[in-house]
Amino acid sequence: MPKLQTPNPRWMWYPGDFEIHHSLKLHCRREERGFIWPAFWKLDDCWHNVIFRKKVQINHPATIKVSGTGVGYLEIGTKRYHYNETAILTPGEYSLLVMAVKMDGLPAIFVAGGGPCKDAITSADGWEVTHLIGETGRLDGPGWKPVGHNTMYMCENDNPEIFKFEYETIKPIAQRKIDEGILYDFGRQTFGKLVFENIAPGPAMQVFYGESETEALDTALSYISDQVPENVSDYTMIPRAFRYIAVKDAGRSHTLTADYEFLPLEYNGKFQCSDEMLNRIWDVAAYTFHLNSREFFLDGIKRDRWVWSGDAYQSYLINYYLFFDRDIVKRTTIALRGKDPVEQHINTIMDYTFYWIIGVADYYRFTGDVAFVGEIWPKMKTMLDFILSRLNSDGLAEGLPGDWIFIDWHTYLDKTGPLCAEQMLLARALESAAVCAGLIGQDGSLYQAKADELRNTLDILYWDKKQGAYIDSFASGGFNVTRHANIFAILHGFAKGDKVQTIIDKVLKNDAIPQITTPYFKFYELEVLCATGETQAALNIMLDYWGGMLNLGATSFWEEYDPTQDFPEHYAMYGDKYGKSLCHAWGASPIYLLGRYFLGVSPTSDAYETFDVVPNLGGLEWMEGVVPVSGGEVNVYASKTCVKVCASVPGGTLVWNGERIPLPQGVMVERSYKA
Amino acid sequence: MPKLQTPNPRWMWYPGDFEIHHSLKLHCRREERGFIWPAFWKLDDCWHNVIFRKKVQINHPATIKVSGTGVGYLEIGTKRYHYNETAILTPGEYSLLVMAVKMDGLPAIFVAGGGPCKDAITSADGWEVTHLIGETGRLDGPGWKPVGHNTMYMCENDNPEIFKFEYETIKPIAQRKIDEGILYDFGRQTFGKLVFENIAPGPAMQVFYGESETEALDTALSYISDQVPENVSDYTMIPRAFRYIAVKDAGRSHTLTADYEFLPLEYNGKFQCSDEMLNRIWDVAAYTFHLNSREFFLDGIKRDRWVWSGDAYQSYLINYYLFFDRDIVKRTTIALRGKDPVEQHINTIMDYTFYWIIGVADYYRFTGDVAFVGEIWPKMKTMLDFILSRLNSDGLAEGLPGDWIFIDWHTYLDKTGPLCAEQMLLARALESAAVCAGLIGQDGSLYQAKADELRNTLDILYWDKKQGAYIDSFASGGFNVTRHANIFAILHGFAKGDKVQTIIDKVLKNDAIPQITTPYFKFYELEVLCATGETQAALNIMLDYWGGMLNLGATSFWEEYDPTQDFPEHYAMYGDKYGKSLCHAWGASPIYLLGRYFLGVSPTSDAYETFDVVPNLGGLEWMEGVVPVSGGEVNVYASKTCVKVCASVPGGTLVWNGERIPLPQGVMVERSYKA
Repeated sequence: MPKLQTPNPRWMWYPGDFEIHHSLKLHCRREERGFIWPAFWKLDDCWHNVIFRKKVQINHPATIKVSGTGVGYLEIGTKRYHYNETAILTPGEYSLLVMAVKMDGLPAIFVAGGGPCKDAITSADGWEVTHLIGETGRLDGPGWKPVGHNTMYMCENDNPEIFKFEYETIKPIAQRKIDEGILYDFGRQTFGKLVFENIAPGPAMQVFYGESETEALDTALSYISDQVPENVSDYTMIPRAFRYIAVKDAGRSHTLTADYEFLPLEYNGKFQCSDEMLNRIWDVAAYTFHLNSREFFLDGIKRDRWVWSGDAYQSYLINYYLFFDRDIVKRTTIALRGKDPVEQHINTIMDYTFYWIIGVADYYRFTGDVAFVGEIWPKMKTMLDFILSRLNSDGLAEGLPGDWIFIDWHTYLDKTGPLCAEQMLLARALESAAVCAGLIGQDGSLYQAKADELRNTLDILYWDKKQGAYIDSFASGGFNVTRHANIFAILHGFAKGDKVQTIIDKVLKNDAIPQITTPYFKFYELEVLCATGETQAALNIMLDYWGGMLNLGATSFWEEYDPTQDFPEHYAMYGDKYGKSLCHAWGASPIYLLGRYFLGVSPTSDAYETFDVVPNLGGLEWMEGVVPVSGGEVNVYASKTCVKVCASVPGGTLVWNGERIPLPQGVMVERSYKA
Repeated sequence: MPKLQTPNPRWMWYPGDFEIHHSLKLHCRREERGFIWPAFWKLDDCWHNVIFRKKVQINHPATIKVSGTGVGYLEIGTKRYHYNETAILTPGEYSLLVMAVKMDGLPAIFVAGGGPCKDAITSADGWEVTHLIGETGRLDGPGWKPVGHNTMYMCENDNPEIFKFEYETIKPIAQRKIDEGILYDFGRQTFGKLVFENIAPGPAMQVFYGESETEALDTALSYISDQVPENVSDYTMIPRAFRYIAVKDAGRSHTLTADYEFLPLEYNGKFQCSDEMLNRIWDVAAYTFHLNSREFFLDGIKRDRWVWSGDAYQSYLINYYLFFDRDIVKRTTIALRGKDPVEQHINTIMDYTFYWIIGVADYYRFTGDVAFVGEIWPKMKTMLDFILSRLNSDGLAEGLPGDWIFIDWHTYLDKTGPLCAEQMLLARALESAAVCAGLIGQDGSLYQAKADELRNTLDILYWDKKQGAYIDSFASGGFNVTRHANIFAILHGFAKGDKVQTIIDKVLKNDAIPQITTPYFKFYELEVLCATGETQAALNIMLDYWGGMLNLGATSFWEEYDPTQDFPEHYAMYGDKYGKSLCHAWGASPIYLLGRYFLGVSPTSDAYETFDVVPNLGGLEWMEGVVPVSGGEVNVYASKTCVKVCASVPGGTLVWNGERIPLPQGVMVERSYKA
């Protein structure tokens, strides 16, 4: 018998359906002032009737017992067994079949076994599943796939329809009397279930959530409110985002704690340095990011609580420098894509479709997980068909009715016709597709050719020699220049030769070009600064912008921050007094920038088989930290006088003072400046 | 304001999703001896997040109130209203939006209104819906469609997630003591909920259902059993098929009745004649058919309780001569097809895919409902793409892994390679597709060309001059002849000239060719007899075969009947002692044959714009009946001496004694034989 990858029994389902099921739930539960606010794009559901199969050879008597969500049965030969009924197998060869149905949820099964050969029966290895069942005895259809499973659901008592979080009791750090009740302060932004205990009898108590104290106290307008019913003595709420809680207690005494709800993730990335403010920025960024790393990478924990491909793309990069958690990247990728047929862009946004494809190639670059590329490829292929079928007659990506051309929240972007920034992302997506195709033996030459063609066309269509910049749009005739396409031009290597410096001078350092205002695009702007050696400038912006939020008392990073504003304007966005999310994943980009460009660790070939470590203090006195890499980690210390690097995996090269120094596995390499 | 087609408010949903939702439920609820037996083909689910919109102009103050399944809201301008909250509109122009979400069911809404202009708001006319929502203010996507709705759900209190049946109390006609309890006989096959009342206290009572007395009494093997819990005084079961009920009453006295559950359908077709047995056959066929006409056309009420395209195709034809109910045909067509992408044949059966397409063209032929052809066309198109993508290198339909090549339950069919019967159905499907395309201004020339090509190839590939017959398969080299392809050859006009008579002599009247054994294919065999003038022979078979079941005490027609068998073998099928369905829709074919070929009414152009009435007594002394036609009905009386026909619609022609006599609308036309 071949060695089993997954000897322990675990819950199994149609691959991808766990993610699609939880994505459906997640995207239907956003709330705003008592209204459910479902996602406005196509949401798919999992298959509801599937069949599992496995061929096993057992050499000793064994038992098998299947449990499942929904209804179903185990079939062995001509005999059927109910869920939770034990079948006894004498030694021999068996074709095990399990029919599983959950009309209004996720059909999933758990196969338990007994006897010396039980692992052969229960292991997920070799179990296959299909939704194109066919009559028993006619199971030769093409739809069979290896089952989906994960390490979260390894116990029979687990329920894969309920996403598994961990909980920790947290208490308010302060409370004070307010009109008709009490205001609680939990000390920082958090997400969890409020737990009311020892509640005195009386009428219902009104509860108001606030990411800010102002919001919690503004009971007419706070985003989320709820109530504790009359005459209960204990009451637990559904989990929500908050720091402050205002309780109109109707005179009912009570105690309030909360069950902080989180995904247990390892902080494999670390960072510390001589600048205390930067240390705090890193810590708060990590916490902000952790709060938003749940079923999938969310945009924010109060709002939207949705999965956005553009936001997720940045989260993937941050993740590679903090958790290096493969599973959440895969879950997010699957959830964003949903099922065929493709009928609209991901999140309805054209650029977000492109990011989705780039994100898969990035995932491979960082992890080397070619199996996942193979799994997702059929859906990448139909996504590419969709993209190519919608190019305009010039072969450019241009918005069609229903398409949202986003790029960034930015007043000055000229969005007429096919945009420069969209073509750049399209080219990157096609290149990424070609890479993925190549990895799994598919023909990606069409995508590469199309990408090459785009790269050759971009300068002709969008480069404005007079302004020394890529223009947003040629269709408008307005020759409008913003930073966006020019940032992409450098970041993704579209700008060649002198053009890089020209763009730096004429666009990036030109105050006449409108500033980037969102942390979302500031991610790319800072990356360009770092990538072009302006680490010090990037550091200053981080200290100003993220430090600015901390100076205003932020305990997690915001969706947007405008230093010229004051409270309570800081809480407002989208024309809503409390519309801004105060805990937004894209606010965590310092994690990525500090790991990638300061500690300086990045792969130079797939899956970190080779990687460079290019420490760059950017003006700091010293820094030390850890960057997780595929299969291990890299420890970096750097000061103005020396550098120490230790990589737990082979393949590394320390780049220091113009030297390239090999990093033997597990050996600390140290260099001092020559005085 | 244009005249409203649907002035009254009604429940609205994404078009087709009502059918897809109920199809999912229906195909997950089959039971057998305590096991759920879900359908083994791809089952789709409805969309779970959709948005509705309507533009209205109102000239007087009005109110609007939306209720719905699941959660959602009404949005007017910048204001949102909860379900069941009333909004007041001053005169003006409004864009009404309703977001509707039901994560685990069918999102549907009911819009109520007040004021003189309320109909403009509430009428389903003009309401549109999409699952490709887009952000509010960016609702210019291509997915908008007119809402789905039907006349079953016109009250706010209705719930479209519960299929609406009617109920009638029925009582056992006899009961007798059995070992440990009582056997009840409800007098005939039926379907409904058992209602236990006035139950004495005591332990649980076991309840066994039987389509036959033998099955009910065979408590170890009866298909369906249930129990009345201990110590309840009233108890109603879920609806099931039965005639006999055995109750192991544990000494608990009780009364038992049942709520007969049925779809209220009008018996627009009628038939009576000089032969009492034939009259009983017609009545029992009508009852059998009615029991199986529910959410959709089912195959049987005990087993499978599924929707099979081949069975449904025959039910459509029977329906046109009994209920002429358009809605159930449309519902069945939509449910069978499900959603894109097409990944397997309908019910996994290749021939059933072809019947599905033919059925749509037939529906148009009988009803003239071109709107439905337009609605279903996109899904017919993707179905055709699927079919064409799987033709073999000779352009023939041949089974691929996972395809079930059915044609008939028949031991003697040679199923090697591409079958003659399959190519015939494919040709008919392609012709039907070309017709449908033409009706709605689509280009169907590809389908017509492919069909013409097939018609030309059939004789070359399959006609065996020596045997005077179409062979099943050329690939096997076996030159095997069965009745099936030869029946299709005549029925669908593939056999030209002398070949028709040759087939009749060499195949249909040749006892050396194995007999048709299923009522399913007997449908087509009898139709060929009728169509070739052998009405008397068809009548004799009907009297023998269907009369044979009645003589054995049948109260509904069976899935299969073999006069050489005895009880209890009659109850067995598929290797199961009670595997046979004793109330099977395809047993109702006499309805079609008697209406179409005896009363002789059939359309000669689309939607009965013209039609022929060709009464044919087939040996009867006299007959009279009604055939429903599009927009009216045709009354026919015929005896050996005279004929009387009255059509409530224009366009009819009485064909009698070689004469073609116009039938003026609403005028009785009478002819006697010249003595």
